[in-house]
Amino acid sequence: MYRTHTCGELRIQDKGRKVTLAGWIQKSRKLGGMTFIDLRDRYGITQLVVEADAPQKLVETATSLGREFVIQATGEVVERQAKNPKMDTGDIEIKLEKISILNKSVTPPFTIEDESDGGEDIRAKYRYLDLRRNPLRKALTLRHRVAHEVRNYLDARGFLEIETPYLIKSTPEGARDFVVPSRMNQGQFYALPQSPQTFKQLLMVAGYDRYFQIVRCFRDEDLRADRQPEFTQIDCEMSFVEQEDVLNTFEGMMRTLFKNVLDVEIPNPIPRMSWYDAMDKYGSDKPDIRYGMTIHDLTAVAKGKGFGVLDGAAYIGSIAVPGAAEYTRKQVDELTEWVKRPQVGAKGLIYIRVNADGTYKSSIDKFYSPQDLAKIAEAAEAKAGDLILVMSGDNMRKVQTMLGVLRIEMGNRLGLRNPKEFAPLWIVDFPLLEWDDETQRFYAMHHPFTAPKPEHEKWFYSNAKEDLERVCANAYDFVLNGTELGGGSIRIHNADMQKRMFEVLGIGPEEAEYKFGFIINAFKFGAPPHGGLAFGFDRVCALFGGSDSIRDYIAFPKNNQGRDVMIDSPSQIDQEQLDELAIDVRKHE
Amino acid sequence: MYRTHTCGELRIQDKGRKVTLAGWIQKSRKLGGMTFIDLRDRYGITQLVVEADAPQKLVETATSLGREFVIQATGEVVERQAKNPKMDTGDIEIKLEKISILNKSVTPPFTIEDESDGGEDIRAKYRYLDLRRNPLRKALTLRHRVAHEVRNYLDARGFLEIETPYLIKSTPEGARDFVVPSRMNQGQFYALPQSPQTFKQLLMVAGYDRYFQIVRCFRDEDLRADRQPEFTQIDCEMSFVEQEDVLNTFEGMMRTLFKNVLDVEIPNPIPRMSWYDAMDKYGSDKPDIRYGMTIHDLTAVAKGKGFGVLDGAAYIGSIAVPGAAEYTRKQVDELTEWVKRPQVGAKGLIYIRVNADGTYKSSIDKFYSPQDLAKIAEAAEAKAGDLILVMSGDNMRKVQTMLGVLRIEMGNRLGLRNPKEFAPLWIVDFPLLEWDDETQRFYAMHHPFTAPKPEHEKWFYSNAKEDLERVCANAYDFVLNGTELGGGSIRIHNADMQKRMFEVLGIGPEEAEYKFGFIINAFKFGAPPHGGLAFGFDRVCALFGGSDSIRDYIAFPKNNQGRDVMIDSPSQIDQEQLDELAIDVRKHE
Repeated sequence: MYRTHTCGELRIQDKGRKVTLAGWIQKSRKLGGMTFIDLRDRYGITQLVVEADAPQKLVETATSLGREFVIQATGEVVERQAKNPKMDTGDIEIKLEKISILNKSVTPPFTIEDESDGGEDIRAKYRYLDLRRNPLRKALTLRHRVAHEVRNYLDARGFLEIETPYLIKSTPEGARDFVVPSRMNQGQFYALPQSPQTFKQLLMVAGYDRYFQIVRCFRDEDLRADRQPEFTQIDCEMSFVEQEDVLNTFEGMMRTLFKNVLDVEIPNPIPRMSWYDAMDKYGSDKPDIRYGMTIHDLTAVAKGKGFGVLDGAAYIGSIAVPGAAEYTRKQVDELTEWVKRPQVGAKGLIYIRVNADGTYKSSIDKFYSPQDLAKIAEAAEAKAGDLILVMSGDNMRKVQTMLGVLRIEMGNRLGLRNPKEFAPLWIVDFPLLEWDDETQRFYAMHHPFTAPKPEHEKWFYSNAKEDLERVCANAYDFVLNGTELGGGSIRIHNADMQKRMFEVLGIGPEEAEYKFGFIINAFKFGAPPHGGLAFGFDRVCALFGGSDSIRDYIAFPKNNQGRDVMIDSPSQIDQEQLDELAIDVRKHE
Repeated sequence: MYRTHTCGELRIQDKGRKVTLAGWIQKSRKLGGMTFIDLRDRYGITQLVVEADAPQKLVETATSLGREFVIQATGEVVERQAKNPKMDTGDIEIKLEKISILNKSVTPPFTIEDESDGGEDIRAKYRYLDLRRNPLRKALTLRHRVAHEVRNYLDARGFLEIETPYLIKSTPEGARDFVVPSRMNQGQFYALPQSPQTFKQLLMVAGYDRYFQIVRCFRDEDLRADRQPEFTQIDCEMSFVEQEDVLNTFEGMMRTLFKNVLDVEIPNPIPRMSWYDAMDKYGSDKPDIRYGMTIHDLTAVAKGKGFGVLDGAAYIGSIAVPGAAEYTRKQVDELTEWVKRPQVGAKGLIYIRVNADGTYKSSIDKFYSPQDLAKIAEAAEAKAGDLILVMSGDNMRKVQTMLGVLRIEMGNRLGLRNPKEFAPLWIVDFPLLEWDDETQRFYAMHHPFTAPKPEHEKWFYSNAKEDLERVCANAYDFVLNGTELGGGSIRIHNADMQKRMFEVLGIGPEEAEYKFGFIINAFKFGAPPHGGLAFGFDRVCALFGGSDSIRDYIAFPKNNQGRDVMIDSPSQIDQEQLDELAIDVRKHE
């Protein structure tokens, strides 16, 4: 060992000890002939001091040290003159007798401080330097802690962590697969798993009863800020369970994580909301329930006053923004422009100010009398001082979704979304299927292995679109602060029902057999009733850390072009490799 | 929940309880009007009984049950007439009141028994049924247990589990990479990691101090029985350490695993052997030290008697096989043929019988007097009753290696290799470099990031082949019962030394920069001294389970053609996928 102690552990009780530390130079400064050095490692910072009357060579070495040099330093623990109560080691310093430079450092391209002066690109290129900064060190330490707590919780409850393969079969349904050309089977490809869904179900067929895995998943999608081509899931499955058993097990897990990692108590039980209520009240299947400002249906009260936009709408909804009655015309105009951006897609925004004196001022005063507005305000559950924002349209869910986006924006603007406050929620009773107008077919809302609720099976076997649309699933999402952290369902465990599902999804028998034959077949050999769920581990960690960005919680993330700029990947490969794989790269045209 | 208890937990103390179980029909039989059913789940087997006078419908359902049907059964725990002391639940049975068939099963293609009647291929195709068998269930349960113990041990010692990326950069050095075409960066490829070597070193540069990861690795090699294209490593790295620190840390980990998983005490300390001694005495860098039969150098005593084969040899070595003096001529001939197979590659085998009466009988009696043979027997440390087997050749290491292979074979034949006996060993002081005659260049014996021993650095910077050949590394392998379970080294942490290593390996500066520029560059920013190791997790599990086959310890392994025959992968992909990736599959010529 190059050290007797870490840079985070020495205290006043260690006074008089001869110690050796090793670490990085955080900073050094001269003061009246003395040299003070902050030595840093993963565990903390300890102050080293070289006295003015120290041997010439020691003084010279101390003076020569640059930022991020790696040194080994030996000396005696002494009490500091000027203590620093902000540092764990702030009561002591090390009076140095010896310094060995273990490695020099050229000047880092940005400062290794909590708030670095480096831009995002340069920090990505030198990720190994960025990772030295406290916020990232804390993020990755938290991630380790969360993973370890997850494993302890599940192990204690009889779950087995079983590794499923990464080289699997391409079944392009939903997102795009990453594929891997096979050398030993030329012309054929493996795929990297988008999730271990079918394998965990096969483990249930195999009788493993309680499975989990913290596992990497891969999706070749166009990337957004919070998406990575590879991401990590806490993947779980249980046999002989009903929805209630799954919810209880993982509600317990989340409660334990919050308690053990953050020392936070979350509500017991965690509230539940049906998907229909979530859409109606929050315009989102992942509502942030840290604040109200819920959506109200004005369709019944706002029609028939001669205002064409609303009279012709199939749905009219509102949110009442507390205290925003004082918004200026300019502010309201800006909000209107905001909702008209393509990301929201609204055609416009109607406002009604509920003034403190009980009067109203709205953008529709021409059509609505104060009495009309009072009725609307009542339906919108608006109080004096609120600003009622109204949207309308042909498609109820679309309008609700736009109102939901606006609600989140107003929550942000009003500071209602405190990252240190945690409001978990189960969303339940999802529709099984989603109709897509463009392709004129149904898609599975969760995935094609989700079972219909037993009491809705009659509709599932109907061929009427209305029947299929009202089939619900025992599917559930775990939502925290407006982010979906996980979800799952009770699965189909019957071969005929699985075949019916593929039929409903427009996947023909041959295609189903080619892609999913192994699982349909497996269900013929005594598949138990089963269900499970998966959590997005990167997001769980980010939210636990109070951050929106999963990138800070991944040691070596990729950028929005799917590149790792540190190692400069992806990159070209040798012709010899292409020859062995018997593939050709097309020339750019 | 479909059950109140598992099939493994009810005892005589539960007598009189009304319980519900769920599981698979292991078997059922009629006896004097009664039906006895063995119901199985992951936790055990419980006997169910339907009385002769039970309601007609219950009797009919019980009679209809086939093997591997999944049922839910409710009844009362009663004491058995004929107890079965071999079963944990053997004191009780469940007197059934109700059976629900949760799922039927077609007849499985092989029996779900400890010794199945199914061949390897059919069991691979129906892996989910094979996984129901006890030996595999125990293997995967053991695997979970080992992983959990590893994590607890390392977590308690301040190691952080940090996930490194799976989509990295192809650096073909050593084994072949699996590659992944990039859609967003057409013409470019990711590679799947052969190990997280460079990333864990970057984490050391980043100051993470103690890292580990149980991580999948990928090698596109032609497969042998104990190789898989994807396999799992326990990957570890530490900063500010010397070899002794690494060995102590992981010796402690292995001791804890043996104790906590198998309740076995392994030697403390674990013996160490230099690579040179291992080669000289065992003809292997992974000696099985559960038995002696070591190699002895006969070069000095066996020459000069006019036998051309030995007189012209650069090296003559032997093993003395205990009690094998009684081998017949036929048996010795068979052994001679065995060593002449290409897998061993010997030209022949000389034998000397040391008879019980002190006389000798050898295949070289024509050239060697009894006195000569006595001298050889003394040098070979042979006792009365031993059979001395002698090999010779131009290349000492090659002859030793062949003797080593023969030694293992004789150990197997004599039953000296008990899988329940555990003899761990550290091999240390590896040569840094290996000369390859064919390509006329040096290869790194471990990998190009291993540092020379500080006291050998003078030779490392020499250009003389003899100097480079004698450079040793602080590299180490963990060997158990003749299998290498892991290995590692103290790494290079200096950019100039790393460049020198690439130079020695014949990797030009441009190639080094293109492939490894990021790590050479990282070393310029204050890389700490560091080292680590990795264990082959699949093999660790197999050996803990007393098995040679890693396949039983992997839930979904691939066959020797790299295929998963259960899901039928790899497979062809859609033209649309190829178009998006801008690659073409070459037509077979």
